[in-house]
Amino acid sequence: MPEANSLIVVAMGISTHQEPVVYMHKDCHICRSEGFSTNARVLLESNTAELVATLNIVENSLLMHGYIGLSNIALHQLGVSAGQLVTVKHAPVLTSMSLVRKKIHGQRLTEQELDLVMQDVSSHKFRDIEIAAFLSACAGSRLDVDEIIGLTRAMVACGKRLHWPGHERIFDKHCIGGLPGNRTTPLVVAIASAAGLVIPKTSSRAITSPAGTADTLETLFQVDYSLADMERIVNAAGACLVWGGAVSLSPADDLMIRIERELDLDGEGQLIASVLSKKIAAGSTHVIIDIPVGDTAKIRTHADADRLEQLFVKVATACGLQIRCLITDGSRPVGKGIGPVEEAKDLLAVLHCASDAPPDLRVKSLMLAANLIDMAEACGLDSALDKATQILESGKAWLQFQHIATAQGGLRELPEAPYAEVVKAGRSGVITAIDNRRLARLAKLAGAPFDVTAGLRLHANVGSRITAADTLFTLYSETTGERDYALEFYRNNTSMFTIVATQ
Amino acid sequence: MPEANSLIVVAMGISTHQEPVVYMHKDCHICRSEGFSTNARVLLESNTAELVATLNIVENSLLMHGYIGLSNIALHQLGVSAGQLVTVKHAPVLTSMSLVRKKIHGQRLTEQELDLVMQDVSSHKFRDIEIAAFLSACAGSRLDVDEIIGLTRAMVACGKRLHWPGHERIFDKHCIGGLPGNRTTPLVVAIASAAGLVIPKTSSRAITSPAGTADTLETLFQVDYSLADMERIVNAAGACLVWGGAVSLSPADDLMIRIERELDLDGEGQLIASVLSKKIAAGSTHVIIDIPVGDTAKIRTHADADRLEQLFVKVATACGLQIRCLITDGSRPVGKGIGPVEEAKDLLAVLHCASDAPPDLRVKSLMLAANLIDMAEACGLDSALDKATQILESGKAWLQFQHIATAQGGLRELPEAPYAEVVKAGRSGVITAIDNRRLARLAKLAGAPFDVTAGLRLHANVGSRITAADTLFTLYSETTGERDYALEFYRNNTSMFTIVATQ
Repeated sequence: MPEANSLIVVAMGISTHQEPVVYMHKDCHICRSEGFSTNARVLLESNTAELVATLNIVENSLLMHGYIGLSNIALHQLGVSAGQLVTVKHAPVLTSMSLVRKKIHGQRLTEQELDLVMQDVSSHKFRDIEIAAFLSACAGSRLDVDEIIGLTRAMVACGKRLHWPGHERIFDKHCIGGLPGNRTTPLVVAIASAAGLVIPKTSSRAITSPAGTADTLETLFQVDYSLADMERIVNAAGACLVWGGAVSLSPADDLMIRIERELDLDGEGQLIASVLSKKIAAGSTHVIIDIPVGDTAKIRTHADADRLEQLFVKVATACGLQIRCLITDGSRPVGKGIGPVEEAKDLLAVLHCASDAPPDLRVKSLMLAANLIDMAEACGLDSALDKATQILESGKAWLQFQHIATAQGGLRELPEAPYAEVVKAGRSGVITAIDNRRLARLAKLAGAPFDVTAGLRLHANVGSRITAADTLFTLYSETTGERDYALEFYRNNTSMFTIVATQ
Repeated sequence: MPEANSLIVVAMGISTHQEPVVYMHKDCHICRSEGFSTNARVLLESNTAELVATLNIVENSLLMHGYIGLSNIALHQLGVSAGQLVTVKHAPVLTSMSLVRKKIHGQRLTEQELDLVMQDVSSHKFRDIEIAAFLSACAGSRLDVDEIIGLTRAMVACGKRLHWPGHERIFDKHCIGGLPGNRTTPLVVAIASAAGLVIPKTSSRAITSPAGTADTLETLFQVDYSLADMERIVNAAGACLVWGGAVSLSPADDLMIRIERELDLDGEGQLIASVLSKKIAAGSTHVIIDIPVGDTAKIRTHADADRLEQLFVKVATACGLQIRCLITDGSRPVGKGIGPVEEAKDLLAVLHCASDAPPDLRVKSLMLAANLIDMAEACGLDSALDKATQILESGKAWLQFQHIATAQGGLRELPEAPYAEVVKAGRSGVITAIDNRRLARLAKLAGAPFDVTAGLRLHANVGSRITAADTLFTLYSETTGERDYALEFYRNNTSMFTIVATQ
């Protein structure tokens, strides 16, 4: 009797992000006959598709008898529109949650088991609290090497995969982040692809930082492209700089990353599987990983970095990838801008070889590009560095960056933030340390990355000698609420800059 | 400028269970000025109270300009009604989540740290995904003894606490569950309080089972009482049998238990802290813990039971409680009924000394009551058992149960399930085992505990010799949807009864 369980779809217009929510009246005949209560998991079926969603019970006249409200993501996932009929029943038992419980209780998961979990995550069968439980169970160092390998392969298996006929070797780079600024990726891709390397680069949006590479690049050109577009762009320009989320190279990862962000959580195994699954799915064969180390970077000690490097190498090798990890200086922000637009300004300055281009960003990008060129040509690092420098200084990198931008819809004019607040040092001396975490938090409170012009521009960095009247940084924001909130945070956290008085 | 951030409250009528959700239009001036997006955490302030809630953005005309929708729990927690003004701003940073992350990363939490977490959980500052992360981090055996002690004390500290002037010793009992039926608590309380022991018993609703003691008792009399009511009832009847959730003796636990249920998760440390915090807050000094052990019970081996007993003793002792753990037979269901009303029928049959009363339930309840009496009177277990038996057989226990019922609003008539489906064995032989977990699942699929008459009545138990035509059990349900769903599950799981053919 499909009719008995049929309801008419109402578009509630409510955004519930990735968790599909449906709204049914408490007196609805289906609620009563099926025994549904709030937070029940229900199976919706249209003529062509089905979807598991979380139920919120409505107790007033918001919904009429015979109707079911769908949140935006539920409407989108089920592919229905207002007025259509759907049937509703109990969702089948999510058997893969028993595997999550197994992991929570400290047992290992096999590749086949991780595969089942990732299939269900990627097909939206996990609720947010279930994803949160899985991430917490896997966080820290709770996945062993075999599990990380299994998770990586499982993440690849539940998404699409690119192939590059005619190219034997495909290159890529990744920075594990945690350092404000540090926007080397676009520079490395421009330089290395100008040297002839094919680089189908996908980047993420921010997880816990004030800007991901995709957030920064989106201020310069379009980054949300389909997989087919991505192939077209790489075939046209030899490289691309697109957002990984839209191409669904690792759809399970895309869903988990949002919860990781909301919990401000980063797990070592999740990190490696997230990074490598996207590289493998993109068809990469040679990858460099930038691991910044510093007291307030994501990786705090060289021992941790060494351990992470070993894990990366083991997992990559097991998955047939050639990998080179570079442990870099994570003790201070790289570049001057923090936040999407401010970081984009730094990029352009380096590409233009402008006199005010941040030298640290330039040097680091050249070093990373040189490593890629050395992996490709086995010419030795000194020679590769000469080549990279020549490409940047001759303007070839800027030309190549413009090629990529053209293939991605053309360069955009950078917007300006409506509010800029100059913040003075208030103390004199030498800056001996900057707390990356609190600096990132400051930029986030100012609105980054959702407000693209929000963030800050450092007028001094570690090693700078300043007087009390000198500008320490300019804070940019798009709303006064966020500006005031960020400034209040700074006033309570001026110690994020360690300034040692000198004689 | 409080006016600038003011919005008019709309009662959305949407139940979102314990997580307060508010709805704001995407073009709302506050959303824009504060930079809010879906799932942002916002601070609502009325004239008298404040509340942190999760934001869902509305993108259509569901809400008019200047209005903010509140889910039922948000409305209730903030204590406002439709038409009132509230202000909305960014929620303060939830600093205790950094402690949850610390635990996720495998570090120990101190009592002070657990205290901060429990304070924020109990004041609804944690989102469901944040509670899920904390529970996952603490599940299994991830809390050490000191942490369990700290968690127990922290749970007590964030709720109210009862004192019993004039009574030196206060008694209580608890079963860690996992066994369908097994509704000994009301019998033990009736017998032991008839013997003069003061027992301010609070019970929980089901977490992962087809009925908690509170669910069963609610079919017989009212169980949701305030703390003041609870004191009045105990002073009148020497004991009470109320739902622990309404008296808020451990409010953080009440909030966490729902997420544990949704994730079908039980952690050892959570379990001990949950049980003991409620006993301590209720003012108990002497407690017995029933630990059923069986292949498909919550505790599967005697080694696990021993380990749990040791933990219980250590934590209770550190908290100043006298405790006695009893490891009991968990290899088979206790009693015949499973589900609130069916279990209530068993209770009444034992109290009435009816000829069809389940003997296993009677014997086990007497044994537990005898242990309480022995703790109180140090008369030796044999003598205590004689005393308990005399109290039951003389009708004093039934009289005392009626006293309690009268103090709790009077006995109710038990409702009957509209649908009863007789299920035949279909095989002949001797029942050698019953899978408690799948049996519990069957009763839950039939609608228990939300539908109080749903569940089942066993016509045979482990050891019974049956023929194919014999009734194995009767399935009760309140809706045909749940009945059909449960029967389909049974047809695919007839192996939950192990029936060995005999010559």
